[in-house]
Amino acid sequence: MIIVMHADASQEQLEAVVNRVVDAGMKTHVSRGETRTIVGCIGDEARVRELALHSLPGVQDVLPVEKPYKLASREFAAEPTVLPLGSGTVGDGAFAVIAGPCSVEGRDMLVKTARSVKAAGAVALRGGAFKPRTSPYAFRGLGLRALEMLAEVRDETGLPIVTEVMDTRHVSLVSQYADVLQIGTRSMQNFPLLSEVGKSDKLVLLKRGMSATLDDFLLAAEYVMNAGNAKVILCERGIRTFERAMRNTLDIGAVPYLKRETHLPVIVDPSHAAGERRLVHPLALAAVAVGADGLLVEVHPDPDSALSDGDQSLDFSAFANLMHAALAVRAAIQAAPRDL
Amino acid sequence: MIIVMHADASQEQLEAVVNRVVDAGMKTHVSRGETRTIVGCIGDEARVRELALHSLPGVQDVLPVEKPYKLASREFAAEPTVLPLGSGTVGDGAFAVIAGPCSVEGRDMLVKTARSVKAAGAVALRGGAFKPRTSPYAFRGLGLRALEMLAEVRDETGLPIVTEVMDTRHVSLVSQYADVLQIGTRSMQNFPLLSEVGKSDKLVLLKRGMSATLDDFLLAAEYVMNAGNAKVILCERGIRTFERAMRNTLDIGAVPYLKRETHLPVIVDPSHAAGERRLVHPLALAAVAVGADGLLVEVHPDPDSALSDGDQSLDFSAFANLMHAALAVRAAIQAAPRDL
Amino acid sequence: MIIVMHADASQEQLEAVVNRVVDAGMKTHVSRGETRTIVGCIGDEARVRELALHSLPGVQDVLPVEKPYKLASREFAAEPTVLPLGSGTVGDGAFAVIAGPCSVEGRDMLVKTARSVKAAGAVALRGGAFKPRTSPYAFRGLGLRALEMLAEVRDETGLPIVTEVMDTRHVSLVSQYADVLQIGTRSMQNFPLLSEVGKSDKLVLLKRGMSATLDDFLLAAEYVMNAGNAKVILCERGIRTFERAMRNTLDIGAVPYLKRETHLPVIVDPSHAAGERRLVHPLALAAVAVGADGLLVEVHPDPDSALSDGDQSLDFSAFANLMHAALAVRAAIQAAPRDL
Amino acid sequence: MIIVMHADASQEQLEAVVNRVVDAGMKTHVSRGETRTIVGCIGDEARVRELALHSLPGVQDVLPVEKPYKLASREFAAEPTVLPLGSGTVGDGAFAVIAGPCSVEGRDMLVKTARSVKAAGAVALRGGAFKPRTSPYAFRGLGLRALEMLAEVRDETGLPIVTEVMDTRHVSLVSQYADVLQIGTRSMQNFPLLSEVGKSDKLVLLKRGMSATLDDFLLAAEYVMNAGNAKVILCERGIRTFERAMRNTLDIGAVPYLKRETHLPVIVDPSHAAGERRLVHPLALAAVAVGADGLLVEVHPDPDSALSDGDQSLDFSAFANLMHAALAVRAAIQAAPRDL
Repeated sequence: MIIVMHADASQEQLEAVVNRVVDAGMKTHVSRGETRTIVGCIGDEARVRELALHSLPGVQDVLPVEKPYKLASREFAAEPTVLPLGSGTVGDGAFAVIAGPCSVEGRDMLVKTARSVKAAGAVALRGGAFKPRTSPYAFRGLGLRALEMLAEVRDETGLPIVTEVMDTRHVSLVSQYADVLQIGTRSMQNFPLLSEVGKSDKLVLLKRGMSATLDDFLLAAEYVMNAGNAKVILCERGIRTFERAMRNTLDIGAVPYLKRETHLPVIVDPSHAAGERRLVHPLALAAVAVGADGLLVEVHPDPDSALSDGDQSLDFSAFANLMHAALAVRAAIQAAPRDL
Repeated sequence: MIIVMHADASQEQLEAVVNRVVDAGMKTHVSRGETRTIVGCIGDEARVRELALHSLPGVQDVLPVEKPYKLASREFAAEPTVLPLGSGTVGDGAFAVIAGPCSVEGRDMLVKTARSVKAAGAVALRGGAFKPRTSPYAFRGLGLRALEMLAEVRDETGLPIVTEVMDTRHVSLVSQYADVLQIGTRSMQNFPLLSEVGKSDKLVLLKRGMSATLDDFLLAAEYVMNAGNAKVILCERGIRTFERAMRNTLDIGAVPYLKRETHLPVIVDPSHAAGERRLVHPLALAAVAVGADGLLVEVHPDPDSALSDGDQSLDFSAFANLMHAALAVRAAIQAAPRDL
Repeated sequence: MIIVMHADASQEQLEAVVNRVVDAGMKTHVSRGETRTIVGCIGDEARVRELALHSLPGVQDVLPVEKPYKLASREFAAEPTVLPLGSGTVGDGAFAVIAGPCSVEGRDMLVKTARSVKAAGAVALRGGAFKPRTSPYAFRGLGLRALEMLAEVRDETGLPIVTEVMDTRHVSLVSQYADVLQIGTRSMQNFPLLSEVGKSDKLVLLKRGMSATLDDFLLAAEYVMNAGNAKVILCERGIRTFERAMRNTLDIGAVPYLKRETHLPVIVDPSHAAGERRLVHPLALAAVAVGADGLLVEVHPDPDSALSDGDQSLDFSAFANLMHAALAVRAAIQAAPRDL
Repeated sequence: MIIVMHADASQEQLEAVVNRVVDAGMKTHVSRGETRTIVGCIGDEARVRELALHSLPGVQDVLPVEKPYKLASREFAAEPTVLPLGSGTVGDGAFAVIAGPCSVEGRDMLVKTARSVKAAGAVALRGGAFKPRTSPYAFRGLGLRALEMLAEVRDETGLPIVTEVMDTRHVSLVSQYADVLQIGTRSMQNFPLLSEVGKSDKLVLLKRGMSATLDDFLLAAEYVMNAGNAKVILCERGIRTFERAMRNTLDIGAVPYLKRETHLPVIVDPSHAAGERRLVHPLALAAVAVGADGLLVEVHPDPDSALSDGDQSLDFSAFANLMHAALAVRAAIQAAPRDL
């Protein structure tokens, strides 16, 4: 951490700052420039992060130097994390597509979807049992019945199951049925929930909060990892910006940025970003081209009659077309010479 | 709901749209303009809100006409809600200030703070027992011990207690100690939690999510009310925007906007908006002048040594000054003629 | 335009609204729903767009139905616009890459860059002569001397010249040297400038304002077209959001959205979006995959010593790699079956 | 400037960074921490701000220490700037309200408005002659005729004239009529225009760009001041955020923040922030309470029939009420003890 003093800060103010930092167990290194003095703090930055240093008289700015996350960082693990997912893996070159309906609406539609997305190349089945809905009057999912159907369809198709958990009280229940616990965008900073899935041995698919910075996102992963579960997949799904023409703004640049900062796999959900099915295809291809480790796509046998998210769900044919194009783009970027 | 057809939509496309709406149990009213045709949907809009209408061929736009919330709306209850809080009330002209430390750090600091803020005019004591923290390595509160201290200090001072609950498993426990259950900004769309506090008989202080639209905010209140608890206080505390000079951007306009749309009381937290104590005072006065029903202010006996949020906490003297100025501003706006 | 009345609006209020609309030369169509009455306005929406309808007593909402732009819309011209650019074209499947230095720093670096980017497949040369800079103390470009160098290098290499104009007084001068007039992000709503380049016969490369909605963007194009110049290329270059990890947030979804709404070509500038050279390559590939009609890329012989934007400029080798990969991705998406 | 090296940066990388900085004419101060090495740069930071330091191998972060503006800063001029405006002044406790119509629509409405706002306490008259409009089809103002009317009304009422200039070619013309040159939000980064009004001897009313950071805003003022004109008034008018319930989000916190960072007067335009007249009154009072040096308010004899911005214009009676309340709030905050 670096503390920048005001140009007119007094010697007493400087000493008070130094003392505060030293009291917290760090060393300091004072450097006098032409216009202002700078205090470098040497030691574990976490010790001073909570201090009210900014309010001390004479302080102009407090600049962190270390990243606030550790376990999720490249410095902690330089090699990419590769996680098993069904018959395949995700991370470091293994490209994994997870597909399925927004909500599990019934056994029949689920098994049909599972078979179709598997045939097209998906490696896991998504399906909502407990649905977070902005309005209390919207369909909130079939709950336990949906979990049972998901498990049955896994048995029939071999596809591992990805489903959301949003209540700490349900983590244990959902873990009995699911292979991957999904943490939704509105739960990204539900810290008790993050700790709870951190105690599970399931994979965790962590979606970025709609106004989470990338540091916030990695700190959320850190919560899970710090609680004992390092099997985290990050999922960019669009952020909230002034532009409301689409449901969200897909932050496509987050993918290469995250892949540089963390060793965790990074996938993209083009469905929630787009909010309408005609834009899912191009956004998915952009995600592949930018280097994502996989996709999370909403697919429904008859999107026009879906109970939720129908506008952004693909039908089987559109999904098969998407898979075809996605693999072609993936092949193209893998064959091309990498830039530095 | 109004469906706007594309200029070149066919008669068949129009009929398909009409049929879909009629199948959902609404009536339609087709209006042909010079360049395009419009389908008005008559009946309960909730029935068609989930339909994938936007994706139907020929549809250009789907425009909601009704507000998605009901219980929270002025149409439902034209008169302002007034809630009892300690010896006073909040809402409709009753101005209520809630103050206290970010976290309960000990019994002594808590009782001192309670006495001081009470003497300055606060009507309730805030204090965190379970703290949501962006980093897993930050101080997360004293938990149950803090709840016990809060209850003791209530007994000593008569100030009702406001404290955050963020885990559905803790609602019952926290309710044994607290008078007001606070839902933090990161929990505003924790729907199971909203439903759970909706079953409680405590007041609920609901903070706006940092990227929640005002509609989202009112829908979160609707969740609580729909579960049975109408005693909701809304709290604007700053939103996340491109401007990062301050911790958050206080959306001061949200106050009069909300007070027009809803009957619920609306208060402001200037501390989290500012992020630094020198800006708390002017932001608090702005909140009073704009018509807020109260304030939520972080106060600490020695902010420089606080375990959390020290940078944005006021000491006793600064809080007393603030109360003095706030009451003067409040008197000024109440004496002045109202505009329409 | 549709006017939604409050649930409790009176008959007199309704009539006043109808009269106001009729006075402005439109017809109305009143539709009474279960909870509220709606006034449809039939005729040229532009006539009522400026009216203070929202403030009339009893009005809840005013919903536009027509797009505010005409010449730029697909309704005006269903077929994609294809514009000549040097030896090629841009638009509708013709993929055009424009590359070159942020600023023209000298004749030698310019000619070297031109030759290198041409060899790699670029069809036009970019280079700044008049530079908009956030700080008055930053390098603002070589001005007229740079224009002369650009023209000379065009003569030597055959590459058409793209350069920014930001002062209405310079449009005529810059037009003497440039083939494409670039309107920078900070000038997107410089309406006198838009009108001025609208009187030119040069191509106009219009960059999206950093907080411009897509409607604002198309209205800026409309200004140019309305003044007489239909040769507009739109360029997405990143928007300003809460996320500051990268220089801007590339709104990759804007590309397919715009291509559906307008017939104008849409290209992407990955350099300004990324702000750092390591991210330019993946963002450029995402732009190709999402369906952009071209790219605008900053290239410099020695980025580390560039006078401006060095951090985000590619060297010759990285640019050649990028072109190679971009063409491979383009081939892949063209070979794949299209979704609907 | 401080350069933070990666934890695994090599000695060669460190030396290359140091050499680059030294070559640019600064001294360096290398400080080795426990996990990473930091290079402090001593000297004029402007020398290295343009260098592509971030791209050098081994560099993790580049942190500026100095503010990028000088003339506008408190360090340059610790005392508040007080500017003459008509019979009064603006800045440092002198509270100035500028009011008038969005557009000058005719001589009669202008003189009526001027007399009314003067009687209510306004010290200057605003009125648009050249109007920036998002759509080319909207009313763009009466131009020269409006300037003539403004000058006539000044002669009749004694009120100085505030009007916008948005074309570098018009600065000289507008300066012949106006007392204060207004730079609109869309022109805040029209750098040639800023330089041009910087050569004038008129006051400059600079409105914040709708996505300008406060640093960007102060740099825009710096452009004007650097060109020779130090008479700049800053005007916060709302920023663009995800929240679209109101026209803009008034960044009320910007006022005290700016007043700490700069010596220039800071006023607030509640009309453009609100976008609807019922919210102008409370936002204006919030601006007064937060410490603004004045207001810029749209007033029209008959807002419902205004040619532009009617929805957000006050009539004479509402403006008089506002002035009454504003002065009462101002008196209240001036009488109250200041916090630190």
